[in-house]
Formats: sequence, structure tokens, C-alpha cells
Amino acid sequence: MARTQPQKRATVHDVAAAAGVSRGTVSRVLNGGYVSAQSRAAIEAAIADVGYVPNTAARNLVRRRTQAVGFLTLEPHSLLLEDPNIGAIMLGANEELSVAEHQMVSLVVDSARDTERVARYLSGGFVDGAIVVSARTHDPITRVIAALRLPATFVGHPPDLARDTPWVGIDNAGSARALVTRLAAGGRRRIGMIAAALDRDSGADRLAGFRAALGDRFDPSLVAEVPLYDYASGVKGMRELLSREPAIDGVFAASDAVAAGALEALRDAGRSVPTEVGLVGFDDSSWALRAQPPLSTVHQPAREIGAVAADLVLRQIRGEHPDPVVLPSPIIWRTSA
Amino acid sequence: MARTQPQKRATVHDVAAAAGVSRGTVSRVLNGGYVSAQSRAAIEAAIADVGYVPNTAARNLVRRRTQAVGFLTLEPHSLLLEDPNIGAIMLGANEELSVAEHQMVSLVVDSARDTERVARYLSGGFVDGAIVVSARTHDPITRVIAALRLPATFVGHPPDLARDTPWVGIDNAGSARALVTRLAAGGRRRIGMIAAALDRDSGADRLAGFRAALGDRFDPSLVAEVPLYDYASGVKGMRELLSREPAIDGVFAASDAVAAGALEALRDAGRSVPTEVGLVGFDDSSWALRAQPPLSTVHQPAREIGAVAADLVLRQIRGEHPDPVVLPSPIIWRTSA
Repeated sequence: MARTQPQKRATVHDVAAAAGVSRGTVSRVLNGGYVSAQSRAAIEAAIADVGYVPNTAARNLVRRRTQAVGFLTLEPHSLLLEDPNIGAIMLGANEELSVAEHQMVSLVVDSARDTERVARYLSGGFVDGAIVVSARTHDPITRVIAALRLPATFVGHPPDLARDTPWVGIDNAGSARALVTRLAAGGRRRIGMIAAALDRDSGADRLAGFRAALGDRFDPSLVAEVPLYDYASGVKGMRELLSREPAIDGVFAASDAVAAGALEALRDAGRSVPTEVGLVGFDDSSWALRAQPPLSTVHQPAREIGAVAADLVLRQIRGEHPDPVVLPSPIIWRTSA
Repeated sequence: MARTQPQKRATVHDVAAAAGVSRGTVSRVLNGGYVSAQSRAAIEAAIADVGYVPNTAARNLVRRRTQAVGFLTLEPHSLLLEDPNIGAIMLGANEELSVAEHQMVSLVVDSARDTERVARYLSGGFVDGAIVVSARTHDPITRVIAALRLPATFVGHPPDLARDTPWVGIDNAGSARALVTRLAAGGRRRIGMIAAALDRDSGADRLAGFRAALGDRFDPSLVAEVPLYDYASGVKGMRELLSREPAIDGVFAASDAVAAGALEALRDAGRSVPTEVGLVGFDDSSWALRAQPPLSTVHQPAREIGAVAADLVLRQIRGEHPDPVVLPSPIIWRTSA
């Protein structure tokens, strides 16, 4: 397995030496300037010989443009593996950036170490802009982006986001309210919620919508708070609700993954869905379709959110000041309630 | 929403102008050289005022180091959302790179347009090395990396990979053989396989292991070929096997996601698992645990694969020539067979 050549990238100097010309002559060829046909042929052969690749980073440095956009996911690692929405947002953004000849570079931010390193990366001139998913209130990355004046779009709207920062999202509160109103209209009398991620706008807004839908019937003891939009939180939250109120007959889970976990806890407790307990989720992700029974939920247009986020960044890079975008998120009623 | 200032990054020139000193003086401060206390104070105030951030890209250019490593996923978009292994490999790599103060930048390669753009990005000096997941035979990215002499690690071993390119993976053929041998030992007589991704080493090797386990009993008509390691392929492959051989009583699905899809097709056909049909998967991903019944499978140490891949790249960046690594992949026997 020994390699005979050390891995070292060829430089203009190597090309010049191989072609027997000056570095200036090589530069003229690279930049499309005039050289004799003979020198050009020698240089082109030398470029192939030594495996020289022109350094885009050097040229970008002069232009101060990288044609790259960061995609930052501020989520615990475990959730990145479970949440189909983040993947769909990422792919929607990648498609849009790809058409515009921009490279999306995806950066995971999980630990404090990640935060510092990503902050250095963003300030290092490697990207022209950033898309930020799942920022929490007082997120250090939000401050870094503001300090750098980096063109950026947020997915969702953390409360401390500067007013003029473009963002894209859905009406979480309005959609949750409409969904829970429909659940209640089906005759469910003791409706609880598994509320997740209350430190994000999406989590807090879904709880606000739940509360608004129930009005006077809202009972704070029927809200189980869990940290993450994940399956394990759904199992835990549902067990908690069942122990607090055995007669519970309706549940709004803050995401489809949470609802899938709640289904497991209900199955373990011998409760049938939807006959004894009506269950609704949020997102319309693959979790909703594959649950048994399939989940009634809110459709979150994740790919379109990604595409719009990319468009908002590209417009800022071009010097425009786009307005925030709120996309429609209709109810999808299946058989779990 | 109008912004009063255009988004433009401050330069050394802006700092010098605001501080009333020359650019050379600013450079001396930035590089830790000597200047008067008065100039230093003025320059530090000016740096804060204009929001100047030193350009790491410029300094990296001189060193020809970026402290960034690309993570390339050569998968169709849809699979990226479904395959928990890719996410786990990514997170394992991120952790290892993070400890070594390297930034992982993840790049999606799906379309021909993506391939060209990523090739340009890799050749542009934005990363010091690359981790490549799911390369197919004759993948253009493999050729680009070889031409650039970029330090790289492959996850899995495409047949046309240069012999001295370090890679990390598991013994797909040996594990598949052991798994199917155990399935057959349970008394199953008509055993089929849903074979996926035969253009990858993993897919081809799992089929080879299946064939080796059955020996003379191998029947090519009981192999349904599907393109991807995904749920939809599992549904389709299982329907095909059932129509070809209604008496089928054992199935090896090439991944857990494929097995989950096969479970749906078996349920639709009224076949009980494991009573009438024994079903085994591969990966030991979240699909295996959440299937009803939970899947017997092969444990793929995805996080560790990611961590080793990162280590192999970092060692090459330091000038070492590490050997390939094959990690253990034990059988996990649950209740689906």
C-alpha cells in the first residue's frame, strides 16, 4: 500500500519548470493572454503532465466571491438522523443553489466546539452566504452572522432575530390551531399535547395554536413538554400524559416523529388509535405515511422552504433586500384521528 | 424591511481609513508586529467600528491549507432522507474532524450538474481532503479526486478504486453469508433475496454472500433486483418475489429499509412474519428496531466507519499513507426470523 509520490498539489512553478518557460508566461496562458503557439503547446502539455489545477480559491479571493453557500443545521446529532424535514429542506436548497451554479456546503452545529469552529469558518471567507435551520433564541451563530454582515436566511423566525433579516417559514400557530380545532370537532373531550422544542419559534408557536384552539377547555396539566422533535420524546411524552390523565382521548404531537413515538406508547398501553384516542402530528413527513394508522397532520412544504431559503440568500448576495416569505401549510386528514 | 447599509464586508483598507493610519500599520497589528500603543488602540477601535474580520481564506491560501474536509454523498436525493446510515457515518466523521479542529463540509452529489460543480469545488482549493460515501463503479468523482491527488478516503471499495487509496468498510459478503446461513438453519426451504444497488461494492458483495450461503440450493429466479436501498424498492421487490414463488418462506433484504418495505408487501399479501416467512435485513439501523416485528440483521458500525474515515483522511493530510480498515459487523438476531 506504499505510495511512491507524496500527495502535493502541483503549482504554476511546477508547470513553468516542466515547460521550460517563465511563471509569467504560464500565467498569461492561464489568463487567456498572448503567447506563441509553441509556448502554449509546451505549457498545455506540462499542465497535463504535472496535474496542475488552477486555484479557484485564489481567484475568488480577488473577487471576494466563493460561489459557495453554507447550510447550517443547529440540531443535536441524533435528530439529524430522524427528521426527514431537515433533509428535505437541504435538498430543496441544494437544487435551487445548483441551478444558480452555487455550491451548497452543509455544516453540522451540535457542540460548543462546533459553534466556535463554524463561526471561524464563516468568518474565514469560505462562503458568500448562509442558510440557518433551527436557530434557537440567543443562538451564538445568529450573533456571528449579524456581526459578519453575511447574507443569510433563517428557516423559521427566532424571536431575537434582527427585524430586517429575511426568513422563510410557515404559520405554525395558525396551522396548529386549525388542526386541533378539527380534532376537537370530532367529539374528543380530553385533548392533550406533547409539546417539543419550546426554545424554538416552531415549538412555541405550535403550543400557542393548541391553546388558542381549545380556549376555555385548555388544561395546562395536559401538556407534556419534551426537548426534541423525535421518536423517543414521543414515547416519553405519551407515557406521561397517560399517567396524568388515563381518560385522555385526543393528542396533538408536535411533530410526526413525536406522534410515531406516541403511537408506540399507546400500543403498549393497549389503547387503539383512532377508536379510543385520536392522534394528530405535524410535518407530513415519511413518519406520517408509514405510521399504522397513517397520521392526520399539517403539511410542511419542506422542499419549497429550502428552495425559497436559497433564493433569499442568492438575492441578498446580488445586493437585494428581500422580504420574509410565509408558505401555505394545509391540513392533511388521514385515519389516526 | 429596507436596509440602510448594503451588505459589504469591511477590508483592511476600511480599517486603515477609520483609524487614520496606513494599511501597512494595520497589517502589522493583525500579524502581531510592533506598533505604538496609540496606533494599536486606534486600530482596534476601528476594527470594532467597521466590523472587520481577518480573512482566513487569504491566510490559508498562503499555507495552502483550509482546515476543511469535504464529505461527499453520491446518492440520489431521496435516499439521503431515508438511509440512517449515511447520517450516522456523517456524524461520526464530524465528531472526529471536530476534535482535530477541522471543519466538515458536506456536499450532495445527485445530478450530472452536481458532479461538475463539486469537481470544480474540490479543485478550487476549498478543502484539504475528502470522504466519499457510496461511490459507484466508474464514478466521475473518483477520477476527479485521483487527478487532483486530493487526500481522500472511500467508504466501501468500488472495484475501480486505485489500489493505494485508503478505504474503510465492513465484510459485506462474509456477513451476508453468515446471516443467510443462520436463516437457512432455521428450516426455511425457499429463500429469496431482494438485491439492491448492484453497481456498488456493498450491493454486489451482499448478493455474493447470499449465493455462497445457499450453495447448490441457490436459485437465481429467487433474486429480485432493485436499484436502491430504500423502502419503496423493498415493497416492489417483495411483490415480485411473491408473484414468482408463492411458497417463498425466507427473504434476505439487502438493507433494513428494504426489509421494512418488504414487511409492508408481506402484510398486504396476508403473510405473517416470522411464522410463515422469515425476513432478515442489513445495517441494524433505526428501521430494524422500529419494524414490527423487529428485524434480525447485520450490525453496520456506521458512526465508527465515519470516525475511521475521518482519521484516514487526517493522516493523509499529515503525509502518512494509512492502510484500509475493515471493521467487524456482527449478526443481531431479533424476531423477524
